[in-house]
Amino acid sequence: MAKRVGRYTMAYESLPSVVGTYSVAGSKEGQGPLGKKFDLIVEDSYYGEKTWEKAESKFQRTAVKKGLEKIGSDKSQYDLVFAGDLLNQCTGSCYGLLEHDIPYCGLFTACATVAQGLVLSGMAIDGGFVNRAITIASSHFCTAERQFRMPLEYGGQRAPTAQWTVTGSGAYFVSGQEKSTVRLAHGTFGKMVDYEVTDTTNMGAVMAPAFCDTLENYFHDTNTGVEDVDLIVSGDLGKCGYDLVCELCAGDGFDIRPKYQDCGLLVFDRERQDVHAGGSGCGCSGIVVASEIYPRIASGELKNVLFVGTGALFSPMSGMQGENIIGIAHLVHLQHVAN
Amino acid sequence: MAKRVGRYTMAYESLPSVVGTYSVAGSKEGQGPLGKKFDLIVEDSYYGEKTWEKAESKFQRTAVKKGLEKIGSDKSQYDLVFAGDLLNQCTGSCYGLLEHDIPYCGLFTACATVAQGLVLSGMAIDGGFVNRAITIASSHFCTAERQFRMPLEYGGQRAPTAQWTVTGSGAYFVSGQEKSTVRLAHGTFGKMVDYEVTDTTNMGAVMAPAFCDTLENYFHDTNTGVEDVDLIVSGDLGKCGYDLVCELCAGDGFDIRPKYQDCGLLVFDRERQDVHAGGSGCGCSGIVVASEIYPRIASGELKNVLFVGTGALFSPMSGMQGENIIGIAHLVHLQHVAN
Repeated sequence: MAKRVGRYTMAYESLPSVVGTYSVAGSKEGQGPLGKKFDLIVEDSYYGEKTWEKAESKFQRTAVKKGLEKIGSDKSQYDLVFAGDLLNQCTGSCYGLLEHDIPYCGLFTACATVAQGLVLSGMAIDGGFVNRAITIASSHFCTAERQFRMPLEYGGQRAPTAQWTVTGSGAYFVSGQEKSTVRLAHGTFGKMVDYEVTDTTNMGAVMAPAFCDTLENYFHDTNTGVEDVDLIVSGDLGKCGYDLVCELCAGDGFDIRPKYQDCGLLVFDRERQDVHAGGSGCGCSGIVVASEIYPRIASGELKNVLFVGTGALFSPMSGMQGENIIGIAHLVHLQHVAN
Repeated sequence: MAKRVGRYTMAYESLPSVVGTYSVAGSKEGQGPLGKKFDLIVEDSYYGEKTWEKAESKFQRTAVKKGLEKIGSDKSQYDLVFAGDLLNQCTGSCYGLLEHDIPYCGLFTACATVAQGLVLSGMAIDGGFVNRAITIASSHFCTAERQFRMPLEYGGQRAPTAQWTVTGSGAYFVSGQEKSTVRLAHGTFGKMVDYEVTDTTNMGAVMAPAFCDTLENYFHDTNTGVEDVDLIVSGDLGKCGYDLVCELCAGDGFDIRPKYQDCGLLVFDRERQDVHAGGSGCGCSGIVVASEIYPRIASGELKNVLFVGTGALFSPMSGMQGENIIGIAHLVHLQHVAN
């Protein structure tokens, strides 16, 4: 099998195993439809810390620590961690992971971080460069609101297109040594896409075109289509992004709807939880893929899943300086392989 | 040759070629000792744009565009770009590289970005996952000061340990298809190191221990030492960090001084240019390795060079919340191979 497939896609010949995942979720996420599936629910938004930022770091710290316990491994077995978050200078990750003492590769691709980390983990392991790697990302509603929009104390009105940043962290343990039934089969890095959206309360519109671009590149490279997979799951497009994706795909001549779900729609009950367009943030796909999608692949219920992490690249300053918000999406093909 | 060497180091069996580099430097950098070596010097700190942030993006855009012209290649030949900068949410990179339309892998490891990108490029190419990859990073004195310290208009007094953020961007073009005399031979990802430094005007003290940790891990893994290389070059430790490194290495039983230089000391003339402890920023190693170190390896004057990119992980908010500043360093072994 060639490692390079078409213009954009990489095939992982050895099919590295995702040997386990761990999800730490916040209180609101715990009350949502997936509440019973998370490994740990933290009721206190401060997680016993003095600030929300320190709490976010603790979400990552806990996800790695308890995840290693869950899979019966040890940090000394892991050669590398790919990590990122939404905070300025990715401080959620660095302070969160410091004590674990694992070589650290910092990422920033906004909410596409988990997918980007899994694509890189596949390369690192399939290439034989590391034995085992962790991918982790986090987000926190309270840190994201005050950094990107308004301090919560301001009590601003939310737009109907706005999404609710998920409080949580998901960790993924990938190994070239141990085998599991969940494998990394392909990875496709996305290009940045600019649809000239400037509304920071409509991330779905920013990211939907990037999602379609990457997905269609993958289909073209691998000569496959919607019919060849069991599920396509986007990171955090929410209701607006979901509808846009269905429209854009229809315009490109295929119907994605029968196979398509979005982590931002899975994580909350929009009727009951007042989250407007749905969930978002690095932690959204982080906890949803770890707790809801992964077990269904592990059991064989789903054989081929395309997880497309979606990100919106901007900062409050770039917005004030009149820049558009840029979309990006990275795809990882997760495959069930019977042991 | 095994791809995994010891606990921390990766060997690139195929020795991917760095087929070219391009450096775009600011005015002050142009007046420094390396002024004649930069590919392009931009006198206007705004680079014709409305804001310094847009200017920083233009530095990256130009480095990739003109770099591709310099090496006689084309963006369609490049499968991936690893990019990062110091701005919140890495907006220097995303707005800079958008128009190039190359799959984008965003990084954040502060000033260690170029080294991290080269280590990842080595993996991507040696693993056979991409044919060619670009690594790029940037920094800008004016964007960094207002983001991390004070707006320039405030006219704050600078501490003697403070460094001057380099305005510039360096691009590195790595290929598994074409051959050059400059090769990626090894990569070592660093661990985060906390020496409990909280002084945001003394980055040398934060990063020096991380530099030593990664360098010693590399020496241990490859069973080599100072005597086996021609040059060890750190990213931006400045005078304080340089002296600390010499002390720490002496304490660990070896004398690094005869082989050791620092990009932060090479880029400015400390006597003449009022930069206090020296240069810093992603762009510092970015332009110095591209314009000063790379040609000396290409010509064969230097056969084995260890480039150790150094980064300080923190944000203004993490500082205000009482966190220490975390150091990190990633190492790439650049080797001259006669064609």
